[in-house]
Amino acid sequence: MSTSRDWVDLENAALFTDLYQLTMLQAYFMEEMDEPAVFDLFVRRLGKRNYLLACGLETVLEYLEALRFSDEAIAYLRRLGRFDAAFLDYLRDFRFKGDVYAVREGTPVFENEPLVEVVAPIGQAQLVETFLLNQITFQTNLATKAARVRRAAGDRMVADFGMRRMHAADAALKGARAFYVAGLDSTSHVLAGQIYGIPVSGTMAHSYIEAHDSEMEAFRAFSGVFPSTILLVDTYDTIEGVRRVVELARELGDAFRVTGIRLDSGDLGALAREARAVLDEAGLQRVQIVASGSLDEFRIVELLDGGAPIDGFGVGTRMGTVADQPYLDSAYKLAEYAGRPRMKLSSAKSNLPGRKQVYRMFEDDQAAYDVIATHDEPHEGDPLLELVMQGGERTEAGRRGLEEARRYATEAQSRLPERLLALEVASQPYEVRLSNALQRRLDETRASLAAMEG
Amino acid sequence: MSTSRDWVDLENAALFTDLYQLTMLQAYFMEEMDEPAVFDLFVRRLGKRNYLLACGLETVLEYLEALRFSDEAIAYLRRLGRFDAAFLDYLRDFRFKGDVYAVREGTPVFENEPLVEVVAPIGQAQLVETFLLNQITFQTNLATKAARVRRAAGDRMVADFGMRRMHAADAALKGARAFYVAGLDSTSHVLAGQIYGIPVSGTMAHSYIEAHDSEMEAFRAFSGVFPSTILLVDTYDTIEGVRRVVELARELGDAFRVTGIRLDSGDLGALAREARAVLDEAGLQRVQIVASGSLDEFRIVELLDGGAPIDGFGVGTRMGTVADQPYLDSAYKLAEYAGRPRMKLSSAKSNLPGRKQVYRMFEDDQAAYDVIATHDEPHEGDPLLELVMQGGERTEAGRRGLEEARRYATEAQSRLPERLLALEVASQPYEVRLSNALQRRLDETRASLAAMEG
Repeated sequence: MSTSRDWVDLENAALFTDLYQLTMLQAYFMEEMDEPAVFDLFVRRLGKRNYLLACGLETVLEYLEALRFSDEAIAYLRRLGRFDAAFLDYLRDFRFKGDVYAVREGTPVFENEPLVEVVAPIGQAQLVETFLLNQITFQTNLATKAARVRRAAGDRMVADFGMRRMHAADAALKGARAFYVAGLDSTSHVLAGQIYGIPVSGTMAHSYIEAHDSEMEAFRAFSGVFPSTILLVDTYDTIEGVRRVVELARELGDAFRVTGIRLDSGDLGALAREARAVLDEAGLQRVQIVASGSLDEFRIVELLDGGAPIDGFGVGTRMGTVADQPYLDSAYKLAEYAGRPRMKLSSAKSNLPGRKQVYRMFEDDQAAYDVIATHDEPHEGDPLLELVMQGGERTEAGRRGLEEARRYATEAQSRLPERLLALEVASQPYEVRLSNALQRRLDETRASLAAMEG
Repeated sequence: MSTSRDWVDLENAALFTDLYQLTMLQAYFMEEMDEPAVFDLFVRRLGKRNYLLACGLETVLEYLEALRFSDEAIAYLRRLGRFDAAFLDYLRDFRFKGDVYAVREGTPVFENEPLVEVVAPIGQAQLVETFLLNQITFQTNLATKAARVRRAAGDRMVADFGMRRMHAADAALKGARAFYVAGLDSTSHVLAGQIYGIPVSGTMAHSYIEAHDSEMEAFRAFSGVFPSTILLVDTYDTIEGVRRVVELARELGDAFRVTGIRLDSGDLGALAREARAVLDEAGLQRVQIVASGSLDEFRIVELLDGGAPIDGFGVGTRMGTVADQPYLDSAYKLAEYAGRPRMKLSSAKSNLPGRKQVYRMFEDDQAAYDVIATHDEPHEGDPLLELVMQGGERTEAGRRGLEEARRYATEAQSRLPERLLALEVASQPYEVRLSNALQRRLDETRASLAAMEG
């Protein structure tokens, strides 16, 4: 049975994993290796972004709480013929009992900074890699994209229209939540409205207009059912469509309550100006103009810089698939096992050994630089990683919820330097330093591995 | 409760829709508009592809069968405050009772050809738009991408390693299925293995090596638990890692059963050649080389053209997010209502009115061109659209299943002209004609709409 909080079947999430997690788990079981391990989830390079907006922790914590192997799951693994009977028995009681440290949802993060740090017996920390990467990578990427769209649109209304071309069902659901964290106003996604309490919005499609004998008849009928609505005007001829809205206003007189028109094709800037003129001339200054169709942060800026009188945007596919950067270079790496720092030596895919803390350093209430430090050294600045799960149970900090994430995202971004908030890649990236203690640990771990393995 | 066939909660799928579908549905209800409508799902432009591989029908049919509004869903809609009580009552008994025509999963399709045609009372056909677009767009895009990877790799083994950076949970599940339709050999995704019966594969991660006191010790331990395995050799120094596999072979003698090594970083072509030489010199010709890390069809061709002795590929993020084209320009458009053809006039976003059939014309057993015709005119060639659901019940053709889709994809692609199978965009695209009867209907519909609306 699915939980009431989610739409995917978390009760069967143990098999949402790469097969190699299970083969490694069996090897650890057979070798009796169950010392605590530390794994970090981080993003190696920001690519086209100046910062990322962390998102997805709530999903991860729900998963860790629900994680268990059903009888059906174990029966399937047995049928694969590569797992040991004693190991399959051990899976029956498998639970996640570890500690999780994480940055709050809505936190701006930078390259190599842990978004999540898992401290647990190695098998538990290993198995969950795939789900954690899957959700945090996706949700952080989507929230980051939406923050850019939010920024581009200023204080104009922005609605998420992305679900129809997003990558299958869960993306459209978690994506709507990530967009809301990033500050969008509403979503067209009704199920996201139900599950997360996000405001929903939407009015009519071209098919509704086409199903009627004329556009005018469709406008009359729809505004009869929903007086305060937005009418879609570009099914046949956009400006003719706007004139019909004016005609409807004349017909209805004081009963006319239409709040806006929507343009979904053509030269949105030119059409918005023309539509505005037609509406204004008819005394319909209060009727707003909403634009949609192939929008993203760049197109929105272009429209607004061109003076397009657009009051709101419906943003869909290009934001929902993060078309300019559809994935993040995320990683989940072993940093410590049995009390000893660990790392991969390969220069391009290296990682920072041992447990860590990230400190954000402010000057004049603006983020100046971050320091990644060892987890237990005294350091000034605001620590970003907090304990969100202890022994498999959520802490207070693990229950902040969606509205708080949204509020925090706004606040934390307002404290970033202006150059990072621009849509272009900043010529001077934000600085992430390593503390002396962490640099020392890194050098020592690298040297001892090179000596042993070289 | 989720169904046993899927991992998303199809019992609550009615709210997986854009809000405007529900507002239009209420308007149709209040206007007593319930005549049959025809909607087509098609892709307007192929972008960087020479053809698409249709996929996602199975998910769509499961959804249409399960579609209903739960009490919880109706309670939520009531709380929104914009729906009429009589309409909410009507939703209680809402079921999909329409007919569905579709091309088989695994069919190569081209621009403007209907992948799915829905014939149902307009409210039913309208509501399902969002879910149909969401699943068919995504799964077709993924299957198309994987067909290119399959082509690039020739008969070498290709495993899907994409799940960790795909767009949330459902994408990783449906994607694994789409990859299998397109001919990949296996997936790392255990849940996809359980649900769809796809072969699963995978061995070890760098963390396993790092958790041991040395690479050699890790190799010994893992091959002790899984003798016939693939060892990951690039954690510290790749060629040193290969030498340790040779050392292990000497230690184990006849008990050595390791089947391969995996390279996951660095210059894969050069490392593969060097590794091959080291293995061959030790008499380990039977140990295969598997490569992974930032692969896609272009990189695979580059490696193989460069003579890299690679026997198999693990392909992940770039395929799993379709990084070069993360969405398709798909649409779901009203083509007919109450027996009268309908269309949108806007030139860039137009559609073909009325019910249709697509005929594939062969010359020397090779696809020569397609003809989109009216659904009931006599025409030569192979008809692609078949009735898969009638009155809300699946037909035989609606139960073909995954293995048949995979088989058909191979067969149907083998009958495409060679220029379409190349990875570059063909200078001469495949031709899609309209039949005379359909062209006539298009002209007439456009003229009558222009006269009425112009």
